[in-house]
Amino acid sequence: MENNIVLGHGSGGKLTHSLIKDIFYKYFDNSILLQQSDSAVFCMQSENLAFTTDSYVIDPPFFPGGDIGKLAVCGTVNDLAVAGAVPKYISAAFIIEEGLPLKDLEKIVESMAAEAKNAGVKIVTGDTKVVNKGQCDKIFINTSGIGIIDKNNEKINTGETIENGDKILINGPVAQHGMAIMAVRNFGSFKTDIKSDCASLNHLIKDVLDTGARVKFMRDATRGGVATVLVEIAQNTGLGITINEEDVPVDENVRGMCELLGFDPFYVANEGKLVMVVHPEDEQKVINAFKNNPLGENVSVIGEIVESHAAKVVLKTEIGGKRIMDMLAGEQLPRIC
Amino acid sequence: MENNIVLGHGSGGKLTHSLIKDIFYKYFDNSILLQQSDSAVFCMQSENLAFTTDSYVIDPPFFPGGDIGKLAVCGTVNDLAVAGAVPKYISAAFIIEEGLPLKDLEKIVESMAAEAKNAGVKIVTGDTKVVNKGQCDKIFINTSGIGIIDKNNEKINTGETIENGDKILINGPVAQHGMAIMAVRNFGSFKTDIKSDCASLNHLIKDVLDTGARVKFMRDATRGGVATVLVEIAQNTGLGITINEEDVPVDENVRGMCELLGFDPFYVANEGKLVMVVHPEDEQKVINAFKNNPLGENVSVIGEIVESHAAKVVLKTEIGGKRIMDMLAGEQLPRIC
Repeated sequence: MENNIVLGHGSGGKLTHSLIKDIFYKYFDNSILLQQSDSAVFCMQSENLAFTTDSYVIDPPFFPGGDIGKLAVCGTVNDLAVAGAVPKYISAAFIIEEGLPLKDLEKIVESMAAEAKNAGVKIVTGDTKVVNKGQCDKIFINTSGIGIIDKNNEKINTGETIENGDKILINGPVAQHGMAIMAVRNFGSFKTDIKSDCASLNHLIKDVLDTGARVKFMRDATRGGVATVLVEIAQNTGLGITINEEDVPVDENVRGMCELLGFDPFYVANEGKLVMVVHPEDEQKVINAFKNNPLGENVSVIGEIVESHAAKVVLKTEIGGKRIMDMLAGEQLPRIC
Repeated sequence: MENNIVLGHGSGGKLTHSLIKDIFYKYFDNSILLQQSDSAVFCMQSENLAFTTDSYVIDPPFFPGGDIGKLAVCGTVNDLAVAGAVPKYISAAFIIEEGLPLKDLEKIVESMAAEAKNAGVKIVTGDTKVVNKGQCDKIFINTSGIGIIDKNNEKINTGETIENGDKILINGPVAQHGMAIMAVRNFGSFKTDIKSDCASLNHLIKDVLDTGARVKFMRDATRGGVATVLVEIAQNTGLGITINEEDVPVDENVRGMCELLGFDPFYVANEGKLVMVVHPEDEQKVINAFKNNPLGENVSVIGEIVESHAAKVVLKTEIGGKRIMDMLAGEQLPRIC
């Protein structure tokens, strides 16, 4: 076998077939994928489905706490899980730059397989394209996913039941993913102790939903950070949101890196954090469920839905001031996911 | 609005939201997409599903007979349809190079919407990433798709019922897509009369399946061409295949271009051609159905499954010789789809 990806790996011919057998089938080993067809065929136990897609273009592809492969699985698993779905099947489509070391591809594929196993999803269909050197940057991955939605959780995706008094929670400290990437980019091989929070949240979400708590809405706070999720909730529901800055957890080293580089942690991407809106009577039940899972042990109630300042998010700052949070106007960090 | 794509269009913030509203929602207008969630949620009427994914990196993105948007819809529709599925829902994920004119993006999105309407599928979920200038080439699109499989068509995807004596058909002349792209690349604005055959084949396939004919297998002959599909059938079933070269339709101008540029039309990509294996008693029934649809009117029986030369494809040439067809060893045409 070659040591690097060549254009022939994307031809659909012999080299493509050997790449599929030697790398993809080796790690993504399940009977549906091994049908070896362009379409995966399977039976779904439910008629209520969730379907999502995301492309991952993160630079660099390997970073503290994960790599583009792990990220591509976690991201799609999380998009399904926050819609109230149980993630089941994932596709994996690769766009690879000619010259990528095959061992890098194998490492990424191995990482996808490990995360898929951890999340309990199957990678059942895929695609590989190779473009000439200089026509993409190393590797881009698209994952799409299908999940099953239980009848009880049908309304979570729209957030239509959100009302005044509902509590807003987050499962742990923010801005880790974005700052881990920035640290690698800025300080290169210089050792940083900031790790991406990249994680599949579906088991944590199941733990919470299994309590029977009235979960009104969930959203993973990726590009645009926690602020963007909150603004979307306010704008889509027309309700006001008040957030207490001091209740939003930020690790000390992440805060330091944000200050050093001039970022607001509320706008920095996460890959293992979700914002959850719950009925106030169920707050404690939800907190208990979070605390029993390592991915939720640092849960915090960061604010609530309020009658005042309709469709706006107001941040009560640590020094006692108030300011309105808006969406990012431009680009803070390109190629963060 | 800006005239060109900027990094902020991929930030997840204000510019991303305006791009989604001004372009994507304008053309991909359906109630599921307008849930405005990261996951589309819907009800499927069947439990037997097909799921597929493909990334499109074609260069140039606009070509005679289509563009990358039309191609991205047709390709995924066809992958589902040849699995015996009725295509229903499609995702659309864009990786865009900073600086792409917004009017180009709009043209591509408009073209996707038109083809989705034509094929009867809904684009229900999507994603947009923007990378710095020079980190991808103009635009890459991933589409994934979900279709429903009728109980009667469950075995088509695997080809497990293929047997000796089955007839092999193709719905029209080969090599048009690949040669249309090569003509544009080599002769630029010079007018060529070769157009890509890019088309959604799901309605044509439905016409054939509705006759009740025993269709054993279908595969669209994209990258690697008709030869690669035939070799895959022979290798996967262990059966022999004989193809009569004179029965494989090739348009004269396409043949001329192939000769000029040194390509074998059997290996050149198509985007609107499928190879179909049918029970010999149903051959005429299938031909009649093909001929009633403009996408199948030039149907031809190109060969059959035979007892001799197990797992090999033998081509009977027009001058009376025989040669074994194999898969492409390297890359013939990079970025053809």
